[in-house]
Amino acid sequence: MNIFIVYAHPEPRSLNGSLNQYLQTRLVSLGHSVQVSDLYGLHWKACLDSADFPDREPGARLDISHDSKHAFESGTQTPDVVAEQQKLLWADAVILQFPLWWFSLPAILKGWVDRVFAYGLAYGVGEHSERRWGDRYGEGTFKGKRAMLVVTAGGWESHYAERGVNGSIDDLLFPINHGILYYPGFDVMPPFVVYRVGRTDPERYQQMQTALDQRLQGLFTDAPIPYRMQNGGDYEIPSMLLKPGLEQTGQPGLRLHQRRDS
Amino acid sequence: MNIFIVYAHPEPRSLNGSLNQYLQTRLVSLGHSVQVSDLYGLHWKACLDSADFPDREPGARLDISHDSKHAFESGTQTPDVVAEQQKLLWADAVILQFPLWWFSLPAILKGWVDRVFAYGLAYGVGEHSERRWGDRYGEGTFKGKRAMLVVTAGGWESHYAERGVNGSIDDLLFPINHGILYYPGFDVMPPFVVYRVGRTDPERYQQMQTALDQRLQGLFTDAPIPYRMQNGGDYEIPSMLLKPGLEQTGQPGLRLHQRRDS
Repeated sequence: MNIFIVYAHPEPRSLNGSLNQYLQTRLVSLGHSVQVSDLYGLHWKACLDSADFPDREPGARLDISHDSKHAFESGTQTPDVVAEQQKLLWADAVILQFPLWWFSLPAILKGWVDRVFAYGLAYGVGEHSERRWGDRYGEGTFKGKRAMLVVTAGGWESHYAERGVNGSIDDLLFPINHGILYYPGFDVMPPFVVYRVGRTDPERYQQMQTALDQRLQGLFTDAPIPYRMQNGGDYEIPSMLLKPGLEQTGQPGLRLHQRRDS
Repeated sequence: MNIFIVYAHPEPRSLNGSLNQYLQTRLVSLGHSVQVSDLYGLHWKACLDSADFPDREPGARLDISHDSKHAFESGTQTPDVVAEQQKLLWADAVILQFPLWWFSLPAILKGWVDRVFAYGLAYGVGEHSERRWGDRYGEGTFKGKRAMLVVTAGGWESHYAERGVNGSIDDLLFPINHGILYYPGFDVMPPFVVYRVGRTDPERYQQMQTALDQRLQGLFTDAPIPYRMQNGGDYEIPSMLLKPGLEQTGQPGLRLHQRRDS
């Protein structure tokens, strides 16, 4: 299968750098084809701005959705953005690999999303009617592809547990897993997270590799997070509120948006 | 009082641009002193990398926490970062103003956090012992200051409601409000969010201004989000798990981290 790794760490001689090398090597040895976008290595332009739409009328007011739609439809996006979109379309699975900085993506990776996820590709797709509200959340351009986060965190695992002070890792990653990946159609795998990475001795690193290897072997067979499809009947249209009675008793917060059979 | 606005939108002739002008004008007319960092206007460097630590040994392995700590302590940070830190220290309240892109900060604003929130200033502060786990979550450098998000969103308000398909706005903003702002000590105000901003006629814009004005008038008197202090007795140390029985019955997900009297 085709795997696309988007990698965001500024130091190749880091734990992330080692894990990235391992990811590439292991995926190839499993028979996959691999492409990597090393965002720091590429000097990726992080900030979405008017330079992303070179075909705009000079002096016209920048309107991100409008200009993104036009650039995507008319083939006037910048070459760096087009190259990333082609890798996404080529891929059967996409892995975003990054250190968790301030409980979210490093800016360079957020900027990859901001710029590459164009109107017509990742949003603004599909019809709006009484039965559908666009192709999103389980439908869309990337339907049938899988996505997975590979994340390092400095804090302890218990700090990210269901009752941990940071908030649970699943809730913290919801804006990424559900909002960035499930939105344009990916089936999203549970994240692979390693904690307390300030203290990684060779033995622990070996354990990480073993655990990651299991996840790579199951990348196309393990069950994805059972998020609810938007247009599958669970949400009212157009309010997009979850219909009453669908949640499990006592089901907390964002877990509402997972199917009951999970 | 002193108010610091960090503003992230690439188009001055946008709704965000108008709201930013209004924020400045209104806060001054209320008697405050205002400083603004217009991140796009400043061509803010979004990506944290080795250039942020000019005092590093050439060729040394980049270690973000270590290098950030050294640069902060030794006064060898870059001038752009120091300028932002001084504005934070000057401020009695900080407002982050931005459009919600992919359910999170635009990359340029995330990169402002990644670079400005140094070790020794925003994290790595305070002692770790049996009774304390650093000065964070309610304590820290910015204790006594207030912070508020001013956010525009394209989607409908109901899509961001407690049962809305996007996830609730409070849960989506938790990594920012709790993880970025409460962590280094800010009292965090409920966010000011305007929805469905693709369709803003003059009447609706007037309503937005009026609603925002009320929030500005209450900036130092309204109640902040009642997040739980980490070292106030609610969490076990060092696991940082919320002690049993503190939550309200049926209290969902991330709301665990708010006090019961909320």
